[in-house]
Amino acid sequence: MPEISLAAIAELVGGEVKGKGERKILGAASFENAAESDITYAGNAAFLKQIHETRAGAVIVPRNWSAPADSEKYDYVLVDNPQLAFLKVLEIFCPSAKPECGISPNACIGKNPQFGKDIFIAHFAVIGNNVRIGDRVRIHANTVIGDNVVIGDDVLIDPNVTIFERCLIGSRVIIHAGAVIGSDGFGFVPDGEAYRKIPHVGIVQIDDDVEIGANVTVDRATFGKTHICRGVKTDNLVHIAHNVTVGENSILVAQVGISGSVTIGKHAVLAGQAGIAGHLSIGDNVTVGPQAGVVKSIADGEVISGSPGIPHKLWLRVQRIIPMLPEMKKKLAELEKKIAELTKTAE
Amino acid sequence: MPEISLAAIAELVGGEVKGKGERKILGAASFENAAESDITYAGNAAFLKQIHETRAGAVIVPRNWSAPADSEKYDYVLVDNPQLAFLKVLEIFCPSAKPECGISPNACIGKNPQFGKDIFIAHFAVIGNNVRIGDRVRIHANTVIGDNVVIGDDVLIDPNVTIFERCLIGSRVIIHAGAVIGSDGFGFVPDGEAYRKIPHVGIVQIDDDVEIGANVTVDRATFGKTHICRGVKTDNLVHIAHNVTVGENSILVAQVGISGSVTIGKHAVLAGQAGIAGHLSIGDNVTVGPQAGVVKSIADGEVISGSPGIPHKLWLRVQRIIPMLPEMKKKLAELEKKIAELTKTAE
Amino acid sequence: MPEISLAAIAELVGGEVKGKGERKILGAASFENAAESDITYAGNAAFLKQIHETRAGAVIVPRNWSAPADSEKYDYVLVDNPQLAFLKVLEIFCPSAKPECGISPNACIGKNPQFGKDIFIAHFAVIGNNVRIGDRVRIHANTVIGDNVVIGDDVLIDPNVTIFERCLIGSRVIIHAGAVIGSDGFGFVPDGEAYRKIPHVGIVQIDDDVEIGANVTVDRATFGKTHICRGVKTDNLVHIAHNVTVGENSILVAQVGISGSVTIGKHAVLAGQAGIAGHLSIGDNVTVGPQAGVVKSIADGEVISGSPGIPHKLWLRVQRIIPMLPEMKKKLAELEKKIAELTKTAE
Repeated sequence: MPEISLAAIAELVGGEVKGKGERKILGAASFENAAESDITYAGNAAFLKQIHETRAGAVIVPRNWSAPADSEKYDYVLVDNPQLAFLKVLEIFCPSAKPECGISPNACIGKNPQFGKDIFIAHFAVIGNNVRIGDRVRIHANTVIGDNVVIGDDVLIDPNVTIFERCLIGSRVIIHAGAVIGSDGFGFVPDGEAYRKIPHVGIVQIDDDVEIGANVTVDRATFGKTHICRGVKTDNLVHIAHNVTVGENSILVAQVGISGSVTIGKHAVLAGQAGIAGHLSIGDNVTVGPQAGVVKSIADGEVISGSPGIPHKLWLRVQRIIPMLPEMKKKLAELEKKIAELTKTAE
Repeated sequence: MPEISLAAIAELVGGEVKGKGERKILGAASFENAAESDITYAGNAAFLKQIHETRAGAVIVPRNWSAPADSEKYDYVLVDNPQLAFLKVLEIFCPSAKPECGISPNACIGKNPQFGKDIFIAHFAVIGNNVRIGDRVRIHANTVIGDNVVIGDDVLIDPNVTIFERCLIGSRVIIHAGAVIGSDGFGFVPDGEAYRKIPHVGIVQIDDDVEIGANVTVDRATFGKTHICRGVKTDNLVHIAHNVTVGENSILVAQVGISGSVTIGKHAVLAGQAGIAGHLSIGDNVTVGPQAGVVKSIADGEVISGSPGIPHKLWLRVQRIIPMLPEMKKKLAELEKKIAELTKTAE
Repeated sequence: MPEISLAAIAELVGGEVKGKGERKILGAASFENAAESDITYAGNAAFLKQIHETRAGAVIVPRNWSAPADSEKYDYVLVDNPQLAFLKVLEIFCPSAKPECGISPNACIGKNPQFGKDIFIAHFAVIGNNVRIGDRVRIHANTVIGDNVVIGDDVLIDPNVTIFERCLIGSRVIIHAGAVIGSDGFGFVPDGEAYRKIPHVGIVQIDDDVEIGANVTVDRATFGKTHICRGVKTDNLVHIAHNVTVGENSILVAQVGISGSVTIGKHAVLAGQAGIAGHLSIGDNVTVGPQAGVVKSIADGEVISGSPGIPHKLWLRVQRIIPMLPEMKKKLAELEKKIAELTKTAE
């Protein structure tokens, strides 16, 4: 366990110490769990208001925050973005386990491997023929990599993953356990009573800095590629169909389903269990609400909620009214009666 | 195949024979599939009404049931809870296959194993360093267990499961095939255009008597633990995010998704495909309907349906009205017209 | 890469050449990606209208299509069903990779194997005791097959699949990576505070020509069988519970969930993320919309949408009105006010 002064931490994160810079910090912990020797952070108004409740000795806070009267209880580091600063501190105290190295004698490696330096291939991993792997790649136990797959540098592939032939994986990609990359797309042509399978001769291309969640499925393209662009993060149990493009730095939360040939722009956020119908185009910076069902293309920057999806503000107004429907129906009946009476009177 | 008298079965389940206690029973089967030599059960009014339709020779029935006139066709065992009694009978006729024993020479075992007695580790299982395993644990083929995992007694882990480092598994736990326990939570901090990964240094703790379904994902905590308490049962393809607590004996039906930092009480039931938004608190004995989308915390004992979720009784009333909306809209237009006429007349 | 004349292609697909039958075709590609030496197809009005945009040298078109003025730019093959014809052409240019053969010395085979000819069993596959496998079956890496499983001819099982004991798999079945076939059904009986597990002694039976998607789960029956009938296709991450029957040639799109003891007829289509409640009967040729929640049995040929599901035409009318609810509520309040005034006037 390293020991480091608060002043050194402040320097590391580009912050300013308020209090004792010579304080020794032994660890980083959450607001609730921190001990006297730890540093923690208070990133928003809620935590700042209850700052006297943490037992941490030092707290990372926003630069523009005015400390309360009893603030001398703690030492502070003032920064622009406390959460980001805390992440950097975490890397000091919780460094990634030094990755294992070498190729297990229990792995099976195909013909003509082209492997970089300092790679790790675990027990019972199966690597196909002509696979190209960059430097410092870690492939964990019981993972299967098909023929002609290309993998960049610093990639982490967890256990029990399957990556099918010819798929392309960029650098600094993380693929969590149980994910399936490059399975056949779901495409069939009716042939009388039965269905005839459409061959899927395309690939999946995953660009740099992508993270794919546990037990996610990404189907290969019919032709061409299913394309997960740079910086995309998917949560667990997400389904991405054939020929989909997910634009840079977009976020797919758990159990989202994307139908075939959908194009998603940059910086989109699809909340949990949302679904997108086939062949739609979802713009940049779009937000799709949880469990939303998108059946029309969405322009840049729009926020869509509900199933079927409608603009979020309209959806909010509608949702306020839905629980009043029994009352509205009753009122409608009352008005009808009154009008009938009025009509009678008027006659 | 054992052969056992009806009287012996009645004694085993704490019931009372009505009919021939000396009848020999050769098997246990469902109401529809049973043969003359089998015993079955009729657990509710529907089955009791059609009791003459089963071909079973003996039927387990509720103690307070008054047999119809032609009841002499069967022999009965009268009990308080027919289904529970039938489960005990099943254990006589369909005993769990005697579990295999021993450690496959094809498994890979890490350093410093601490293993109990009568354990089974199958082919191509990979066990990390410092793993502690209790008595009579069965770890099936191609399952991967990380470093420093602790597993109790009488645990069954099916094939192709991944359990990551430091997770804690209680006793009598069942983890079905393809499940992933302890993958990283889905947490990122925006850093300009891109996202920076939040390290997940916490664990998953699964208490005694839990059952985890096939291809389920349970993410590890950022700090602390994701906690699946005693007796929880999850169906298949359920997603449980980082820092969630699921209280004792709660039930998560297939494809349910629980967002980060949610707390669920005891004896809750979440029906299939329901989703819970982040940081909410779900009380004891709560029921969440199928496909419901929960966006607010729920007090003990409430029943919530719909997306977004509302109280079930209100939801039922609303759902009766929704299909009448076209009619209501038409009526509203008619009333508007009539009022316009009345107003004209009045002027 | 084969080279084949357009006339030969026309003969193969039962079509008619319009243009140069002697044109040499070197490949098949999609409308957008095709080059001068490729053949592609235009299967519907949209593609036919923009036919001058493809760079393919030859196009498969409907027999009854009247080519535009500049049509001499391309050569055509006229057929009844262009998509089906194109699939046949694809098989010439993208033949399935010649399957590998033989049993890896790194696979583990149980006692008493009964294997057909020309089978392939990959590295680290685990085959139980008494397993029967037909001809030309391919079982990929790290897949686990339980005791007494029976598999027909020409079956493809991808990596990291688990098939539990006694399940029956027909011929020409494809099971994609990570799928779990025959896990225990989700059945428990309350026993005081806790739940007691119902043993699942039934099986899963998958008939000929079925395709099961990646990371799908199919639970075994309590008694009897969970039955996936001939020609059924399931997309990825689908859940099929215990004792379900899915009728011939039905289609289950990604993330669909089917509860226990549901019966689905022939040629049904369940769109993505739809859910079916337990013990229901879904008729032949039924269509269930995306994200629909089916809570009542459905007669043959019906189309159901929404959650809870209602007839599709009614659902369309309702969905047109839902966004007008704020306006309707406002109008209702106006009418109420006007009526109050009229009533006052009338008094």
